[in-house]
Amino acid sequence: MNYEDILKRIKPNQNEKNRIKAIVDKIIKIIGEKAIEEGYEVEVQLTGSIAKNTWLSGSADIDIFITFPVELEVDELKERGLKLAYYCNEVLNGMATEKYASHPYLNVHIDGYSVDIVPAYKIENTSQMKSAVDRTTLHTKYIVKHLENHQKDEVLLLKKFMKEIKVYGSEFKTGGFAGYLCELLILNYGSFENTLKEASNWMEKVIIDLENHDTANLFKDNLIVVDPTDKNRNVAASLTEEKLTEFIFASKNYIKNPKEAYFSPFERKYSDQTSHFKGLEDILNQFKDRQTKVIFISFKVPEISIDNIYPQLKKTSISLKEKLEELGFTIVKYSYFSEKGMAILTLEFDTWTLGKYEKNVGPKIWYKKASEQFVSVHENVFLEDGFLIEKRERRFKTPETFIHHVFKENNIKILKIGKNLKDSIVNSYRLFGVDDIDRFFSDFDQAFTHDINFRKISDRKLEEFIPLFYFSFFESLDDYLHPSQHLKR
Amino acid sequence: MNYEDILKRIKPNQNEKNRIKAIVDKIIKIIGEKAIEEGYEVEVQLTGSIAKNTWLSGSADIDIFITFPVELEVDELKERGLKLAYYCNEVLNGMATEKYASHPYLNVHIDGYSVDIVPAYKIENTSQMKSAVDRTTLHTKYIVKHLENHQKDEVLLLKKFMKEIKVYGSEFKTGGFAGYLCELLILNYGSFENTLKEASNWMEKVIIDLENHDTANLFKDNLIVVDPTDKNRNVAASLTEEKLTEFIFASKNYIKNPKEAYFSPFERKYSDQTSHFKGLEDILNQFKDRQTKVIFISFKVPEISIDNIYPQLKKTSISLKEKLEELGFTIVKYSYFSEKGMAILTLEFDTWTLGKYEKNVGPKIWYKKASEQFVSVHENVFLEDGFLIEKRERRFKTPETFIHHVFKENNIKILKIGKNLKDSIVNSYRLFGVDDIDRFFSDFDQAFTHDINFRKISDRKLEEFIPLFYFSFFESLDDYLHPSQHLKR
Repeated sequence: MNYEDILKRIKPNQNEKNRIKAIVDKIIKIIGEKAIEEGYEVEVQLTGSIAKNTWLSGSADIDIFITFPVELEVDELKERGLKLAYYCNEVLNGMATEKYASHPYLNVHIDGYSVDIVPAYKIENTSQMKSAVDRTTLHTKYIVKHLENHQKDEVLLLKKFMKEIKVYGSEFKTGGFAGYLCELLILNYGSFENTLKEASNWMEKVIIDLENHDTANLFKDNLIVVDPTDKNRNVAASLTEEKLTEFIFASKNYIKNPKEAYFSPFERKYSDQTSHFKGLEDILNQFKDRQTKVIFISFKVPEISIDNIYPQLKKTSISLKEKLEELGFTIVKYSYFSEKGMAILTLEFDTWTLGKYEKNVGPKIWYKKASEQFVSVHENVFLEDGFLIEKRERRFKTPETFIHHVFKENNIKILKIGKNLKDSIVNSYRLFGVDDIDRFFSDFDQAFTHDINFRKISDRKLEEFIPLFYFSFFESLDDYLHPSQHLKR
Repeated sequence: MNYEDILKRIKPNQNEKNRIKAIVDKIIKIIGEKAIEEGYEVEVQLTGSIAKNTWLSGSADIDIFITFPVELEVDELKERGLKLAYYCNEVLNGMATEKYASHPYLNVHIDGYSVDIVPAYKIENTSQMKSAVDRTTLHTKYIVKHLENHQKDEVLLLKKFMKEIKVYGSEFKTGGFAGYLCELLILNYGSFENTLKEASNWMEKVIIDLENHDTANLFKDNLIVVDPTDKNRNVAASLTEEKLTEFIFASKNYIKNPKEAYFSPFERKYSDQTSHFKGLEDILNQFKDRQTKVIFISFKVPEISIDNIYPQLKKTSISLKEKLEELGFTIVKYSYFSEKGMAILTLEFDTWTLGKYEKNVGPKIWYKKASEQFVSVHENVFLEDGFLIEKRERRFKTPETFIHHVFKENNIKILKIGKNLKDSIVNSYRLFGVDDIDRFFSDFDQAFTHDINFRKISDRKLEEFIPLFYFSFFESLDDYLHPSQHLKR
């Protein structure tokens, strides 16, 4: 593999570095001076991948920490921190959004960069730690101190590989590898290739303990990377088993047959992404080929972060699946998808029609009172294996009947459903299938064009936004039909 | 309830008694004289319901025991016993069939009566018992001694009730109540009505111990009737849970609403049993109404007793059901039926079509060698929940495909199947459904008329036999559609 060529693409050049340095310096200067003016005792620190020189070209997220003395009250810390952050945003004419990790921080968009300005405590070691974000400065220090220059390239290769196989990023939606975790893997295994070689051989219970804290037995995860700066923390704790095994699978595939394609976005079979109907026919034919029944459920979702939406969609899908399977239908696969105010659940059935009657199983005939009660209430009672059973007409003979029933305002409580989704599902859900997906699209175009909610939430011009939504949806269907395809190039 | 009227129908009249007495005397005399001639030391005893005066009019099965001294070798006992029995059959010009309980005995048809002539040991108590049949003479003695005259009528009512709700008869196929068990119930509860009243209130673990043997804890059954003549035996041991609970259900129904109809054969909805297509249309419509898929599998069965055939049909049905359900089909109900050399299995499906593809679940990716092996052998491998999975085309998308596959000579070993059925299934099975049942009947008429095997096994004239087969089959379908109907009049 010609890693030099790949690095040329992914490593920030001097120009990019200079631009970032300029903006970082400006931010630090503004906050620092304002702090002096306010009489706050602070240190303004660059942290994260920029500080560590391990960011991928073009994806520089700037992390600025304002650290306060540990003696400061936490309320005071929040107030002062946010005050400085908002001030900086104002001066630089940015777009600010308040976010929340252990406590509030500010995300600011300045000159095309996303900057997190995070108030924290200034600590020397984790014994002083007051909240989880405080740890970040220790992480940065540790990596800056230990990661050798040539290893930074290895980190970049690993991050890029992980990004393109979609296991990079520790935010909740992804559940993947954090940047810090990548760096520790390189510190441990020395190089990108060696990391993948080792990962492809991982057996359950992998332990990496760079500082010999000897605390791995505290953790139950399959990948345990003891935090060098905090012996009580597994850096891989938030990594999901799914992303971990995906990384292993891709590593095996890469080691067996290394290809440059692993360092670029996955190229789908339908490559012309300028027309949003390109590939649709192919996708629909693949669904038809499966000889199952697919029900798509679309509904609007409220304006909350995708990190909040996804767990709710998951919960909703699972609850719906469980209820439908209790009724006798069998679901071979399901998925959920959301993009810009719209969600689509996909349910795929192996069994979607059921007989007219079902058994209502009553008590064993040995239980005298229960038996008498059961017989007195029901018609058509017979005996089977010692149980009294009522033969009764099935209420829901198709999945659609049940879905229409349960998505009514008074019935939706039957499901365990995301709290933010209830109203929007009841008010906006629609069902469609593989055969009437066209109808859905034309309806949907209408909705996008006319619905004031969609106008509001769209942060692009509509004509750009609609095809973008379709692309994402098609891509999600393509991934649905070809699971793991991006893990094997 | 006017029990007098019922008793008039079911109690043997003097004429019937005289006829039976005459034949019994004749048999005893013939065997006794022959024994003297041969120099055998024997006692010839009448046992069973005739001896106890508890037989239902028209269903007198005569049981004659030839008892030998306990010192006699068992081989000698068999030889001498059968010699005397065969001799008796010859003299009376009967039709003899050798049968087997603990050891061989002879069933003889004489003058329209079925007579069992059974060699056994002459014992005074069970400590002397050499085989299970020896016990019979003790049972007869016990009942003759304890059952009062007026209680014999109560026994008749109970036997008749049980017969008509189809729980009477302890042979393997029925698994119901033995005559001796009925007599003990009456001894315990005093009368027919009281027995039903008590039975309708039975809760698990009913114990009846007339002689206070205090050995009920030896048995695990729900109904324990300690044999007065043998403290180590539960008289209800061979009673199936199914027949026991059916008796309880019918008792509840009778006590709630007593009707004379319980003492007559169950009257089906289609009552004209002279035309074998009467009722068929109704039955087919009821099947259609269920909106399931029904597959009937017919095949010839060898000439062995129905007691042997039924367990094999059950085993075959269950194995077929299990295999089909492993493939993803769901079976809501099944049954089996056999009459005069022909068997029909009925399988009813809630799910009978499946998607084109299935998952072949491989090892967890953590198991290195197994994973490499799996990936090297299969195409289309993806990762799901940490498992490597092959997407492969389903081999059997309909139940019929599988049945045709598995009923081939080389494949039938996949099923756990009755040993006497394998060849006949492979060579003669046919599938039909609710819609082509007519085709089946015309084919079947042909088979009956032309097939030499059917001619051979038929013990009636064909023109009588064919409709008889149909009736039985229709009745079995009617019972299938209306389980427990005969338990509630």
